[in-house]
Amino acid sequence: MSSGLWITFEGGDGSGKTTQARLLQEWFEGTGRTVVRTREPGGTEVGDLIRDIVLHHRGDIAPRAEALLYAADRAHHVATHVRPALERGEVVIQDRYLDSSVAYQGAGRVLDAGEIRDLSLWAADGALPDVTVLLDLDPAAARARLDAADKPFDRLEAEKADFHTRVRDAFLELAAAEPQRFLVLDATLSIDELSSAIRDRIAPLV
Amino acid sequence: MSSGLWITFEGGDGSGKTTQARLLQEWFEGTGRTVVRTREPGGTEVGDLIRDIVLHHRGDIAPRAEALLYAADRAHHVATHVRPALERGEVVIQDRYLDSSVAYQGAGRVLDAGEIRDLSLWAADGALPDVTVLLDLDPAAARARLDAADKPFDRLEAEKADFHTRVRDAFLELAAAEPQRFLVLDATLSIDELSSAIRDRIAPLV
Repeated sequence: MSSGLWITFEGGDGSGKTTQARLLQEWFEGTGRTVVRTREPGGTEVGDLIRDIVLHHRGDIAPRAEALLYAADRAHHVATHVRPALERGEVVIQDRYLDSSVAYQGAGRVLDAGEIRDLSLWAADGALPDVTVLLDLDPAAARARLDAADKPFDRLEAEKADFHTRVRDAFLELAAAEPQRFLVLDATLSIDELSSAIRDRIAPLV
Repeated sequence: MSSGLWITFEGGDGSGKTTQARLLQEWFEGTGRTVVRTREPGGTEVGDLIRDIVLHHRGDIAPRAEALLYAADRAHHVATHVRPALERGEVVIQDRYLDSSVAYQGAGRVLDAGEIRDLSLWAADGALPDVTVLLDLDPAAARARLDAADKPFDRLEAEKADFHTRVRDAFLELAAAEPQRFLVLDATLSIDELSSAIRDRIAPLV
């Protein structure tokens, strides 16, 4: 799509995306490259207005309307922020992109994952990152580590755990379908091991 | 989709949609039916927020983002306003629906008309009106009637006329593709002739 390089980070909350994105930015800047760090939803003025509706509207929003609002944010973000940076030859490092939409909205079971993917791709005019780093973390293990006590999950907690397991499975399926784009890493590795593996994957593209 | 009846009005500005929608509403109410008059964009609280972004944002909005915002408005409007009214057995009379999106956005030549239609249909979960009344008016003739002077069009006026001709052609193509849904009427007929033709088409459905 251009002379720039576009890298997205995906994975559950707490998987270390922000830390690794920052380290990768520092590494690129050390080589003299201009880096744009960005995220969805938001990242543009229109995106912030859309985010306000999705997050702060008091009543319900119809599921398809919510998906379309996220897609509108994506369309504007890619067209006005990501694509111009790539065309200037810059490096774009982004926290979450369409794989998150597919994994989270699809795991919510209200909408079909394939339709969410088609919608996102249409919004972005087919634009896909050069590399997507998936920091994979077993949500049950993460939860267990956090949870000192050994009391059993209540119903709501079990539902939440089930949801996060579906999200994780969806991410892994997406990665399996596009092995050339995805770099899947075990998020329980050390920060240094992860950043080193990410650089090894990206260095040949620079 | 339900026991109600859903009628949309389409056509260029000034073709008489509002007058005919009002007369049809009065006729239905005379028969004891409950009528919901509505329009897009807007018609719901979320829709008004979206409309604010599309109409009042000061910067540019990427074309796909704008199309997705209109689709989000439609998704919410159909799911929370139109469909519930139809399920209660009411009559919904609506000023503009997805045919306007296809005709206007498609005629703008930035986006593909087929994609706009697919997007709208996904937003509405496939919901289509029982009857769509197209009030067809030749924009050049309308313009000529308004324009007392016989001075030639300047470039901008010519472009505008060309755009409105493309919109009209798009409406007529949509009608030709779905003759069972569309009732195409010559908008130069009298108000009484038009309302009578509309009732003749709708009466058998009641």
